[in-house]
Amino acid sequence: MDQVNVRWYVEDVAAHSSPIVIAGLPGVGHVGKLVVDHLVHVLSAVKVAEITSTLFPPQMYLSEDAVLRMPRNEVFFAPGSENSPAVLLLAGDCQSTTPEGHYILGNAYIRIFELLGVKRIYTLGGYGVGRMVETPRILAALSSSSLKEEVLFAGAVLNKDEPVGGIIGAAGLLITLGRLVGMEGIALLGETSGYLVDPVSSTAVLDVLEKLTGIKADRTELAELASQMMTEVSAIASTMQKNNADDLRYIG
Amino acid sequence: MDQVNVRWYVEDVAAHSSPIVIAGLPGVGHVGKLVVDHLVHVLSAVKVAEITSTLFPPQMYLSEDAVLRMPRNEVFFAPGSENSPAVLLLAGDCQSTTPEGHYILGNAYIRIFELLGVKRIYTLGGYGVGRMVETPRILAALSSSSLKEEVLFAGAVLNKDEPVGGIIGAAGLLITLGRLVGMEGIALLGETSGYLVDPVSSTAVLDVLEKLTGIKADRTELAELASQMMTEVSAIASTMQKNNADDLRYIG
Amino acid sequence: MDQVNVRWYVEDVAAHSSPIVIAGLPGVGHVGKLVVDHLVHVLSAVKVAEITSTLFPPQMYLSEDAVLRMPRNEVFFAPGSENSPAVLLLAGDCQSTTPEGHYILGNAYIRIFELLGVKRIYTLGGYGVGRMVETPRILAALSSSSLKEEVLFAGAVLNKDEPVGGIIGAAGLLITLGRLVGMEGIALLGETSGYLVDPVSSTAVLDVLEKLTGIKADRTELAELASQMMTEVSAIASTMQKNNADDLRYIG
Amino acid sequence: MDQVNVRWYVEDVAAHSSPIVIAGLPGVGHVGKLVVDHLVHVLSAVKVAEITSTLFPPQMYLSEDAVLRMPRNEVFFAPGSENSPAVLLLAGDCQSTTPEGHYILGNAYIRIFELLGVKRIYTLGGYGVGRMVETPRILAALSSSSLKEEVLFAGAVLNKDEPVGGIIGAAGLLITLGRLVGMEGIALLGETSGYLVDPVSSTAVLDVLEKLTGIKADRTELAELASQMMTEVSAIASTMQKNNADDLRYIG
Repeated sequence: MDQVNVRWYVEDVAAHSSPIVIAGLPGVGHVGKLVVDHLVHVLSAVKVAEITSTLFPPQMYLSEDAVLRMPRNEVFFAPGSENSPAVLLLAGDCQSTTPEGHYILGNAYIRIFELLGVKRIYTLGGYGVGRMVETPRILAALSSSSLKEEVLFAGAVLNKDEPVGGIIGAAGLLITLGRLVGMEGIALLGETSGYLVDPVSSTAVLDVLEKLTGIKADRTELAELASQMMTEVSAIASTMQKNNADDLRYIG
Repeated sequence: MDQVNVRWYVEDVAAHSSPIVIAGLPGVGHVGKLVVDHLVHVLSAVKVAEITSTLFPPQMYLSEDAVLRMPRNEVFFAPGSENSPAVLLLAGDCQSTTPEGHYILGNAYIRIFELLGVKRIYTLGGYGVGRMVETPRILAALSSSSLKEEVLFAGAVLNKDEPVGGIIGAAGLLITLGRLVGMEGIALLGETSGYLVDPVSSTAVLDVLEKLTGIKADRTELAELASQMMTEVSAIASTMQKNNADDLRYIG
Repeated sequence: MDQVNVRWYVEDVAAHSSPIVIAGLPGVGHVGKLVVDHLVHVLSAVKVAEITSTLFPPQMYLSEDAVLRMPRNEVFFAPGSENSPAVLLLAGDCQSTTPEGHYILGNAYIRIFELLGVKRIYTLGGYGVGRMVETPRILAALSSSSLKEEVLFAGAVLNKDEPVGGIIGAAGLLITLGRLVGMEGIALLGETSGYLVDPVSSTAVLDVLEKLTGIKADRTELAELASQMMTEVSAIASTMQKNNADDLRYIG
Repeated sequence: MDQVNVRWYVEDVAAHSSPIVIAGLPGVGHVGKLVVDHLVHVLSAVKVAEITSTLFPPQMYLSEDAVLRMPRNEVFFAPGSENSPAVLLLAGDCQSTTPEGHYILGNAYIRIFELLGVKRIYTLGGYGVGRMVETPRILAALSSSSLKEEVLFAGAVLNKDEPVGGIIGAAGLLITLGRLVGMEGIALLGETSGYLVDPVSSTAVLDVLEKLTGIKADRTELAELASQMMTEVSAIASTMQKNNADDLRYIG
């Protein structure tokens, strides 16, 4: 097993003209991962490549019948239609265990995308703000200011001071590493508390992504997840208020 | 000294037909280590190979007469009999000091097993549940769902949601890395508190292992260890109750 | 992308005779960084080379229009005049994420300086003393005791017991690595609290640097920053006094 | 600069017949370092080789006139006399910043010793016991049980259960790595609190070392250091008792 291993599942993807990439790896609130996992499902995308790496955690996952598998990231392909582009989806379990590994893995993903004729990358993620957000803004970051107009038109916010401290991990690196080989890139980060998996923020990211790409994805399941989460959060919030009230009685 | 060093002690093991591997390295509750160290002893297994590594901790061990030795893992061989299979036992002091090292060392073990004609690997370990467990369940994880029937028949539990978060370290990696070269693999994890070395859990793991492999190992010593531990745990528990009572008196 | 990547922006710098280096990377109080960033600006220095590295944090920065860029360090050149030397300025975002990386990156910077004919290096930084400092001393450290006279004459302090524990990171390493290839080196460290970005300390470092090098840099902006900071610190201090008074009332 | 760099200062040491090595790098209580630094001084040993490494901390030291130098370990040579053996002393600033680095550096030291014809290594260190020790025992650990008699005769203790957990770092590794190339090795560890630099423990280690090697080293300075430390510890202890008394008055 090498430091980065790519196993190819399909031979002829390169024949398709310039698929876009949508990448959503685990991160803050799993905002990007939720969207991309959802797209793999609703677009019935097929697996093109699987990446395993000694830079991933040495933590084996259980699947059906408790069959073990390595941590892996996967590239899926959906061919697109008249109004919707061909899409490569980068989804998976994990990011690197070391700072240097982020660069090494980022380069590996970009090399795969190059082979598949990619010209544009969207990366999706969350931006933790430390408080509950009802109507999350979508912050964008770009490979070039020439992308400014379309991103603003799609409803995202451009602000060089947010996220404070920039973007850590694959969502940022894929944009800068892609630019080195001539790819356009747009990172979309949904505001989220940072404490919980956040389908509400994911839905808001998907809204912007659809406007940008023309993809139309049934979102029933994501909406259900989001509504379920809002109910849970309300329940938590009311419990907390009650507890605070109790606390006051106790102190009083 | 290279990153991984293998020193061979025996030349002719490869002549034996397809020994199974039973691996038990240090980990949660030392559940797997206790079983494998016990098997090395009761099966009078002979040392086949010794692995030292710059990926092991730089911590030298003292043996008889305070003679120093490097941390090492060892492969032992027991030839088996009519009803009992030939066995390679992977035992030793330690696992890797880094995440990436787990993969590198795992590959090294698998290469040794390949040379020795291995077709099936059992890895043993513990599953920390954070509370005392009187009758530990044995969770299994598999290289393939084709192993499901025999594992359930031997009394193990298959549940894709346990251990939560999967299996970290050699117990999981040897199964997935072995599969890459065509080996079957079964991980057996005994429930354990996670706070103490746990021969009770080890005995329960050995029960399942014996049903799966046909090995019959005298278990007097392991049973003594287990009974001794149960006495100690009871003593601790009653001391803790007494202390709690004292605490209450003090507060009162 | 290699471990260290150098992108050259200008071809003919080597033609200039022996520019001095002034290096100010992020560190305690950003004392060195403030000075060098200021010099890049007021000397209208042009970019000569850009260093990116897998040893830098995997954290992408946002610039105007939220365009993403990699963390990078940069070498700028200002040609100097009759009374002022030609200068290379090493400025940038970060230092290494690992101890070993400091040596690897340090070597890379020195190789760039060698190519550009450098004979002398000044490194600037802060020395955290854990309390507010109104009139910061400038501690110097040298590549050779032959530099002692000029450094003392310029107003710096030489004391083998300060900074306690020596100098960590690029400010120290560039001096010792440079000496290996025959470069003279002087590190100038401004006393600073260690809690805040400190333009007051930076101004004091610049005073000594100017005496040593003959550079004359307009310092309006740095002075404004410093005066603004003193006001803020006074405000913080008076708030803290008030709070302490409040605390006393509360306790009383 | 390579990962490990050896700079030779003397060409003809190999001509001497089989010098012994005495190694004392920084560690618990600096017990070993104090002895070896003392021996370098009193034996007027000359520098043979200097080791610098990217595996050492990126922390530059200040010497006279605030001249900077890299962290380094050094090998010194004292030719010995009729009753006293030729000695190589391994002294210096630091050990590795990573677990793997301990092995890499240990190998580098052993390679130097091989070139210089070494047949026996003594490593000196401390064993932290978490309480003040008035009459420290000297624990020994060996490359072979054949060394048992002479070590016991010299007054050291051999106990496979102490130090608990074995020996971490160069003091242990040099013994096991040296054995791989046929060198005998004896580690001598002085009991010490673990909280303070401990010349009392160092003096006790030197006692045993002298009996083992026949070296006679004037120990005035070490004795002065030790006596000074005993005075300081007494002062600390009496202050602590006084403070405890004050505390009681305060609470009362």
